[in-house]
Amino acid sequence: MSFDIENIKNEFAAHVQDLQNQISEELKRIDTKINLNEDIWERKDFAGNPGGGGITRAFEGEIFENAGVNTSLVFGEVDPKFAANIGGDNNQMWATGISLIIHPTNPRVPTTHANFRMIQAGSKVWFGGGADLTPFYPHEDDFEYFHKVWKDACEPYGHWDEWKEKCDNYFVNKHRADEMRGIGGFFYDHFFSGDPQKDLAMFKEISSNFIKSYFPIVEKRMDEEFDDEDVDFQLHRRGRYVEFNLLHDRGTHFGLKSNGRTDSILISLPKRVKFTYRYEPKKPEHKKMMEYYFPKDWA
Amino acid sequence: MSFDIENIKNEFAAHVQDLQNQISEELKRIDTKINLNEDIWERKDFAGNPGGGGITRAFEGEIFENAGVNTSLVFGEVDPKFAANIGGDNNQMWATGISLIIHPTNPRVPTTHANFRMIQAGSKVWFGGGADLTPFYPHEDDFEYFHKVWKDACEPYGHWDEWKEKCDNYFVNKHRADEMRGIGGFFYDHFFSGDPQKDLAMFKEISSNFIKSYFPIVEKRMDEEFDDEDVDFQLHRRGRYVEFNLLHDRGTHFGLKSNGRTDSILISLPKRVKFTYRYEPKKPEHKKMMEYYFPKDWA
Repeated sequence: MSFDIENIKNEFAAHVQDLQNQISEELKRIDTKINLNEDIWERKDFAGNPGGGGITRAFEGEIFENAGVNTSLVFGEVDPKFAANIGGDNNQMWATGISLIIHPTNPRVPTTHANFRMIQAGSKVWFGGGADLTPFYPHEDDFEYFHKVWKDACEPYGHWDEWKEKCDNYFVNKHRADEMRGIGGFFYDHFFSGDPQKDLAMFKEISSNFIKSYFPIVEKRMDEEFDDEDVDFQLHRRGRYVEFNLLHDRGTHFGLKSNGRTDSILISLPKRVKFTYRYEPKKPEHKKMMEYYFPKDWA
Repeated sequence: MSFDIENIKNEFAAHVQDLQNQISEELKRIDTKINLNEDIWERKDFAGNPGGGGITRAFEGEIFENAGVNTSLVFGEVDPKFAANIGGDNNQMWATGISLIIHPTNPRVPTTHANFRMIQAGSKVWFGGGADLTPFYPHEDDFEYFHKVWKDACEPYGHWDEWKEKCDNYFVNKHRADEMRGIGGFFYDHFFSGDPQKDLAMFKEISSNFIKSYFPIVEKRMDEEFDDEDVDFQLHRRGRYVEFNLLHDRGTHFGLKSNGRTDSILISLPKRVKFTYRYEPKKPEHKKMMEYYFPKDWA
């Protein structure tokens, strides 16, 4: 099969930039008082040559307590151990992607995370990514809606069941009796069909659903009233989120170990967090929510 | 050399219990409204036989926002991989120790952590432990005092310089440009002189200094006034504490991977925490404090 891989890489990189801009605009549209702190950074590769960089966008607002919408495009030589570790067949690497996390203030609005990336290591190319939802209130119709959008996006390609299951198996706090950090979504990694042109088209199409999957839920819930108990539950669940990201998340470990930009990586952590020994929710709604942090067919 | 190892183990276990009780009494004496949640738990060993257990004491009060003062005494068969990993020469293990963490409410009062343990793996015996201070306000005399108490305790045995350096090298957030989580103290591991009777006496003596090293600082500072900026700095530094404990702390990873009791292990996390993208302190006192999170001879 013949294809122009450079062209495909450029097109995916441009798509990632578009997504970053579109999602940033949505955050600003909904939260008119949001503050944006943008950092454009560069890096050197393992040999000390220019190795690309990224655009980190850190938001703080009223509706969105904190959010990070980051892109990066990195390339060049990597540590041979690192190359072997990720399955590359030489020490050259190229990668681009968008990684985002949104922590709303109101506990009735769920947190979300998504990332979409394309990687070339040596002569190998693959795609990875996904999106998942972390709610703090049992608005079952939101969970159904979020899962339905992604199911509709992935199912035509025949990947929904597998990718939904991967997500259920990945965002899990094994040290907390296999409780998930949220209610899942979809997740894939090392995906390559053999035809990068086809894969590019699929992942552009799928990832374009992010805005539709999440922001209507925000607009539906952001004016709901909440009480101190709702906040307390939210902050403790954010604690579990922190536990997952720092103890288990491969992306976080990969980033920190490969000398990534710490501030851009740990932008994933929520602003306010609580930890309490043997925390137990008190309200029936929160007890109900605890039952939902396990795999379930929402769509 | 002839010695009665069972007797030594029993004596260290009894010492650990004494320390737990004495430190618990100090917390109650200083914080008369403190609430104690005590859990006595048991575990099975790798073969499913009774494997000992522990006493977890979780405190929440006014002076002490949250604190954990835990002991455990575990024994029996371990996973062969685990035994090899920790350097045992068969699959039998015995371990006892105290692990404690105290997070005061007032940012003018430092956080502290200490642990003291004795381990027997196969035919090998060793001791480990240490104590370190995590302040949020540049009360230099407190740092000198804390270090001086431990220096006076360790130096007669000829170990201060080495154990202070080990502490400086251990409690470090490598992903945060080698910033320490606090201002250090002392730390040792795999210590065995060849004479367990002598080592027992030394570690009983050294660890008995904990109360003297910390509580006078609490009583000196607990009534100092503080403002919102002090709290903000404290909560962000607690964020760095969480990063260290979940990303780097070998004790935490060891505990979670060896199927330890999650709630007892993660009792180390502070109640309220904050994370902010590229957080920078504003007050001169906090900027000064940032300079102190690197190795320094305080004593």
